[in-house]
Amino acid sequence: MPRNARVVELNLALAPAGGPLRHRLADALIEVLRTGQLGPGDALPATRALAAELGISRNAVLAAYDELAAAGFVHATGGSATVVADGADVAARAGVSSHIGAARPAVQSSLAPDAPPRWILLPGYPDTGLIAPGDWRAAWRAAAGEPVSNGLPSSQPHARLREALAIQLRRTRGVAADPAGIVPAPGVSAALRALATAAGLRGRTVAFEDPGYPEGRRALASAGAVIRPVRVDEDGLDPSALARGDAAVYTTPAHQYPLGARLSAARRAALIGWARRESALVIEDDYDGEFRYDVRGLPALHSMPGGPDVVAYVGTASKILSPGLRVAWIIPPAGLLAAVRAALDESDESIGTVTGDALARFIGAGYLTRHLARAARTYAARREALIAGLRTAAPGLRISGAAAGLHLVAALPAGTDEDALVARLAGCGLAVDGLGQSCLGQSCLGPPPGPALVCGYALLPESQAAAAAAVIADCSPG
Amino acid sequence: MPRNARVVELNLALAPAGGPLRHRLADALIEVLRTGQLGPGDALPATRALAAELGISRNAVLAAYDELAAAGFVHATGGSATVVADGADVAARAGVSSHIGAARPAVQSSLAPDAPPRWILLPGYPDTGLIAPGDWRAAWRAAAGEPVSNGLPSSQPHARLREALAIQLRRTRGVAADPAGIVPAPGVSAALRALATAAGLRGRTVAFEDPGYPEGRRALASAGAVIRPVRVDEDGLDPSALARGDAAVYTTPAHQYPLGARLSAARRAALIGWARRESALVIEDDYDGEFRYDVRGLPALHSMPGGPDVVAYVGTASKILSPGLRVAWIIPPAGLLAAVRAALDESDESIGTVTGDALARFIGAGYLTRHLARAARTYAARREALIAGLRTAAPGLRISGAAAGLHLVAALPAGTDEDALVARLAGCGLAVDGLGQSCLGQSCLGPPPGPALVCGYALLPESQAAAAAAVIADCSPG
Repeated sequence: MPRNARVVELNLALAPAGGPLRHRLADALIEVLRTGQLGPGDALPATRALAAELGISRNAVLAAYDELAAAGFVHATGGSATVVADGADVAARAGVSSHIGAARPAVQSSLAPDAPPRWILLPGYPDTGLIAPGDWRAAWRAAAGEPVSNGLPSSQPHARLREALAIQLRRTRGVAADPAGIVPAPGVSAALRALATAAGLRGRTVAFEDPGYPEGRRALASAGAVIRPVRVDEDGLDPSALARGDAAVYTTPAHQYPLGARLSAARRAALIGWARRESALVIEDDYDGEFRYDVRGLPALHSMPGGPDVVAYVGTASKILSPGLRVAWIIPPAGLLAAVRAALDESDESIGTVTGDALARFIGAGYLTRHLARAARTYAARREALIAGLRTAAPGLRISGAAAGLHLVAALPAGTDEDALVARLAGCGLAVDGLGQSCLGQSCLGPPPGPALVCGYALLPESQAAAAAAVIADCSPG
Repeated sequence: MPRNARVVELNLALAPAGGPLRHRLADALIEVLRTGQLGPGDALPATRALAAELGISRNAVLAAYDELAAAGFVHATGGSATVVADGADVAARAGVSSHIGAARPAVQSSLAPDAPPRWILLPGYPDTGLIAPGDWRAAWRAAAGEPVSNGLPSSQPHARLREALAIQLRRTRGVAADPAGIVPAPGVSAALRALATAAGLRGRTVAFEDPGYPEGRRALASAGAVIRPVRVDEDGLDPSALARGDAAVYTTPAHQYPLGARLSAARRAALIGWARRESALVIEDDYDGEFRYDVRGLPALHSMPGGPDVVAYVGTASKILSPGLRVAWIIPPAGLLAAVRAALDESDESIGTVTGDALARFIGAGYLTRHLARAARTYAARREALIAGLRTAAPGLRISGAAAGLHLVAALPAGTDEDALVARLAGCGLAVDGLGQSCLGQSCLGPPPGPALVCGYALLPESQAAAAAAVIADCSPG
């Protein structure tokens, strides 16, 4: 067997308090190296599985892995599994740490709560319970009545879905695209890898929002892009921070992840102008552009004058319907269309045929429009309830980024140990993300964005908002 | 825009006769470079799309791309899109060829038939028309009635599918695996990439059957494995050709692709013994192990004594049901399990939740067993009919590799121009693969395996067998 066949299921435990969560997780993993449970060449556990096991967010695990990589304990192999580096065992035994001020952690009882959390405020998960069961079943029933794909190459793959998406995106996002210009992909990560490959971004610099979407950053990096963090503030990404050498920029203009800003109109125009001047590519991740509250809709970057020439628009069914569909879509600039298709083709990544057809019918029959209207009302009410709950229970927390999307940012008093708070909340049955987990490496650029909690409200019923806010208030200082 | 944004949809045309198909396609692509339709940094078209457009097999396109890469005209970027190399335009204008004896092709009228082929003998496509519509619909209906996934991490993802697969694989393939040891993946390519990453095969040598499965080779290479071709004969892969430095070996023991051999019992034991001695990994691609005719079943390598320690078993729903499901599965050695999960997790590759559930129900309700029995009878009859037709119409063709799977090999008289024949047959409305398209680069190792046709019979009704055989006979010499 290859050298790293020795990978084991770890019984990893975190010290229950003291220091940022990513430091503590990194320390616990170094302890695992020190004791020889994992050695050079072994793969670290899957981030999702470890997050689930420890009852923490996947972003926290990614941050810890990044920290270990920066300190040389581990390295990513081609952007996929993270593997223990040669000599990491020696370094661990010698007491080397991945961060300043580490205390050797005692391996103590796990933080993972015995029961699943009572309040899930993790951002990025839609309430799929809002989908009308009859509509959902009808769409799948129709799709299952179609002839079954035998895999023979087609010159018009997923035609029905591309047609439905063209109509939907034009109506809801102002994005004008021919069905032939839309490329389905099995997820945003696959879409971003294909775009990076198609646009020749390997070895070139991609400006990436910081703090920003960790999975997007990883997907682009795994395709060889060199990530350069750029500033984000209350108006979103700052175009003046873009540099001449940037071959592309990744942005979430509808609702910046994680700060929640909507990119201002002036900045939208500046961004398009910069991309046209510099012949750069704008990757617009419109991941939750469908939801906004009390504010005027801003057009997608792609829909602006000159946009289609420089903007690769990326959307997904994960937030508006279900991540289990594994369906995203790309509208690349016309010149990149063939190359994007080729990149997905070469890696043999495509969406399921029945799934694509079911989604097409869900859209075509008007079910998605109905669902989005109902979901927007529900999310608006849950957002109101959480904001009201926090204002009452924890008036010291400043709330921002709540104009759109499915999460808000609750700023904590300066000096709060954000990760310790997240851990305490987990112990109280409340799952939430800290803002620091979305920063690149150990620090964000620009105005310090934290400490803060990133609170998703999509899964929090109004009736639970006051209780959740009270738990947050009880655990928070000030 | 990045430099290769200039990619265009090509109107590529092949010279209608003369020389192997891959040479002619390579020549046509060089002509495209010469005329400046594509330049350095541009991506070549998607292989599937080009194959569909030209009415040839994807393997032929892959072979032509390999040839251009070997000659330095193009290079693969990170294993995905194939991109024109710097200086390729200059070389093309200077008359450099990718192979010996090339004549400058005139860009002539396309070979692509106006109508779809009347007889599809392309290997690797199942007849999805054999699926009982009621069973199919019932499985999807049941799956669509389940709660919709919201994407929250689960410690038991796809539990129902893994349980169904464990039972099915034990019964039909003798593979003993705990449901917890089965990892679903969205396709065999994704499965092979995850295995290569998990087993640390980047930069290491993987022995690969030659001739062999082109997509499998590409998937492993894209994950960084160094492919070393090994001999294949009528008994399958020759274990004596394995070398000390091989970290892994890829094999299709149930029905070697493309030669159709079943790996002999002696060789199976030798292969397991070698892997145990050398601490190497055996990647068993059981892609059509469910179908066999007039012969005793041979156990999967994974089911042999010592097998589970060294064999990573890979299966797929693509051949037994539909490639549109995008569902494959991996049973890695226990020591690689966590790393395989981690690799898929990091690249965010997972199967659709409704699809996984529908497949689980299709298996669990007994529909798959019923379908496989019916399909095996139909395929057996189609195989008989095609063999009888070929024996009558073209007695000079030697038939082999027909004991299992969904294709056979019809050896052509020595000296036959295999690719020219494939092109002539395409012109007559018959789509089939040449054996040479599965060879690594421009030549296969071991006993020369060609010229020959690789004839899939899954899509050829018995009533059409005689007519198809007559077309082959009319076009074939001798």
